[in-house]
Amino acid sequence: MGKTGMGNHSGSSRDRESMMTGKIRALADQYRSALVDDVLPFWQKHSVDREYGGYFTCLDRTGRVYDTDKFTWLQARQVWLFSMLYNRMEKNPAWLDMARTGADFLRTHGRDGDGNWYFSLTAAGDPLIQPYNIFSDCFAAMAMSQFALATGDDEARAIALTTYRNILARRKNPKGQYSKTVPGTRPLRSFALPMILSNLVLEMAWMLDPPVLDETLDGCVRDVMGLFYDPERGLIFEHIAPDGSHVDSFEGRLINPGHGIEAAWFMMDIGRRRGDPGLIARATDALLSTLSFGWDGEHGGIFYFLDAEGNPPDQLAWDQKLWWVHAETLIALSLAYALTGREECGQWYDRLHEYTWGHFPDPEYGEWYGYLNRRGEVLLPLKGGKWKGCFHIPRALFHCMNTFNEMAKRHA
Amino acid sequence: MGKTGMGNHSGSSRDRESMMTGKIRALADQYRSALVDDVLPFWQKHSVDREYGGYFTCLDRTGRVYDTDKFTWLQARQVWLFSMLYNRMEKNPAWLDMARTGADFLRTHGRDGDGNWYFSLTAAGDPLIQPYNIFSDCFAAMAMSQFALATGDDEARAIALTTYRNILARRKNPKGQYSKTVPGTRPLRSFALPMILSNLVLEMAWMLDPPVLDETLDGCVRDVMGLFYDPERGLIFEHIAPDGSHVDSFEGRLINPGHGIEAAWFMMDIGRRRGDPGLIARATDALLSTLSFGWDGEHGGIFYFLDAEGNPPDQLAWDQKLWWVHAETLIALSLAYALTGREECGQWYDRLHEYTWGHFPDPEYGEWYGYLNRRGEVLLPLKGGKWKGCFHIPRALFHCMNTFNEMAKRHA
Repeated sequence: MGKTGMGNHSGSSRDRESMMTGKIRALADQYRSALVDDVLPFWQKHSVDREYGGYFTCLDRTGRVYDTDKFTWLQARQVWLFSMLYNRMEKNPAWLDMARTGADFLRTHGRDGDGNWYFSLTAAGDPLIQPYNIFSDCFAAMAMSQFALATGDDEARAIALTTYRNILARRKNPKGQYSKTVPGTRPLRSFALPMILSNLVLEMAWMLDPPVLDETLDGCVRDVMGLFYDPERGLIFEHIAPDGSHVDSFEGRLINPGHGIEAAWFMMDIGRRRGDPGLIARATDALLSTLSFGWDGEHGGIFYFLDAEGNPPDQLAWDQKLWWVHAETLIALSLAYALTGREECGQWYDRLHEYTWGHFPDPEYGEWYGYLNRRGEVLLPLKGGKWKGCFHIPRALFHCMNTFNEMAKRHA
Repeated sequence: MGKTGMGNHSGSSRDRESMMTGKIRALADQYRSALVDDVLPFWQKHSVDREYGGYFTCLDRTGRVYDTDKFTWLQARQVWLFSMLYNRMEKNPAWLDMARTGADFLRTHGRDGDGNWYFSLTAAGDPLIQPYNIFSDCFAAMAMSQFALATGDDEARAIALTTYRNILARRKNPKGQYSKTVPGTRPLRSFALPMILSNLVLEMAWMLDPPVLDETLDGCVRDVMGLFYDPERGLIFEHIAPDGSHVDSFEGRLINPGHGIEAAWFMMDIGRRRGDPGLIARATDALLSTLSFGWDGEHGGIFYFLDAEGNPPDQLAWDQKLWWVHAETLIALSLAYALTGREECGQWYDRLHEYTWGHFPDPEYGEWYGYLNRRGEVLLPLKGGKWKGCFHIPRALFHCMNTFNEMAKRHA
């Protein structure tokens, strides 16, 4: 029996109902407290660069800055996070101030002459790594959109829209000159971009024309559930042939369970907004089968990478347990359980809850570890780095809190 | 006390001498047998592509081919290995046949219109990944040079020389259009190229003018020992500023102990050929201090990556124990011990021998594992992949066998 017991119903119907409501309220409180008493204060205290603006994200276990470079992904995601919380949780002026320092730093230093977003900058804002990575643009658009929504800042809104259009223009060849693939020999489509787009377009929804938005969402669902998701295998593949068939190569066999699970909740989110229970059901199937495939039966937790055919994956970090994978899975399972009521979702939620809350939070210095080894031991004692910033953990805490609050209301 | 007891001298001088000679002979036999009875037959049996020529290198634990793509690094290294053994160990026609299938495949399919070497090809030889990586060219030049030496093949000799000149022409900007660094903000020099050049130039020695060879070797030693090696820290840094100073960034703090140790034996090799005991002594210092820094005091073995300042490294595989790191260290320590007689080298050799022979070989299916986790458990049950081929292990077995044979002769 899991800690939360959400998937374990016994006793009389009325007792069960009342126990469940209590448990769900306790869960909502647990997520709320972790968000506002632990994770947000950690970043507010340690990450602000008072000299140049923007954020330090390379924070060791205690919050000490061990590297001052600024990575567009993480700058943008932190702007997004504090703007989103301001928009959706509480009009807290300190949160808006946090968002503003990053938004101002990004719009001043983040783009090259063509409006493409650099991958990284020095602390002072000098460009270090070229705009080779279209996800920098995706996260910048999300950031500017949420920040414009919070502030009514017209410049931020314009930057979001220009960046969004630029992403659509670049999407057929997102790597441009940096692509190392010889054209023609083995054409592959990557899952990462359609996946992010299906989240980005919802973020941009408030400034898009409804018919354009609808058409784009149709395309996203078609790509994710129709092409990259293989319903027979129950898995989302990271790379497919243009016709959706599988390719027997390292890329073609690659499964990234965290990606698949994240995409599953993006699909549920779209299904919920559109009132499409069929999409929610299919996304829940994808979530559950990906979890079964990606779960480490020996040590618990979800693997980072697997080969669909069971061959050795190319990624040396394949067996590690990463914060974002588990954070996304908490979001996906709580949402799937709330939307479908399927028992299996509750049982999986319990298992994930126990593993995630038992391994990632650092009770001594606050916030959550990012990288555990296969056994669940801390692999890198950092709270932030080049890839982990103020994003997945607080976003998951916020979503789970909301989902459990809504469930509690329905049960009450 | 280590298994081989090479670093542990006790008893009378004569007894000790005779015991040592026996141990050294046993070591030479152990390396010879592993090379000719285990590792070479594994690749001869499993890696040959009888349809298209060249080699399959993605071999699982049993030798089964799990992916058929052909990576230029590994094709070239296997050509080099069998040619080199033919040239230096035994005129075995089967070894020359093995080299020829790869050499023919590479010269037919390996280059683009400018003579740059693709990074990877399909089994049939169609290009997959562009020539973004200058080390493909380095290993192709080494392969063609050894193969030409073995066969007198004029075309192979010409390809080796053209490729070598092309590498020198590209060395200031080896990544070309694929470089993601914004010029000017933080100029860095990478260690990998000067390191490989210091080995490549010795491989090419037989076809270079002696004064050109001498000048190039001077430059290599100056780069490796004068710029990248920091004698105060006792470490070779992977990236330095153009003036040799350290840069406080992820790249600037990065230590790759296996790289440093490999470079140390390249330097000893140059020192031995040039009769330069000063260079040998400095390279031995570098070897020993890098080993002390890179050794995992808790679980044994040498870490893959470390941060010079003790910060979390960016590389998630930082704590893994890799075949090539340990193979290079066996070469370096045996050579350092043979050339300097320093007790510390013998003691370290014993420790490395025990760890490496105790963890990497697979007694059941033959050959050696490539990737162990921090605890020394098998992380990926493969014998070959995208990066591990028929190269580091047999090269180390050959060098160590030779070194111990020469030591035994001197002792006898």
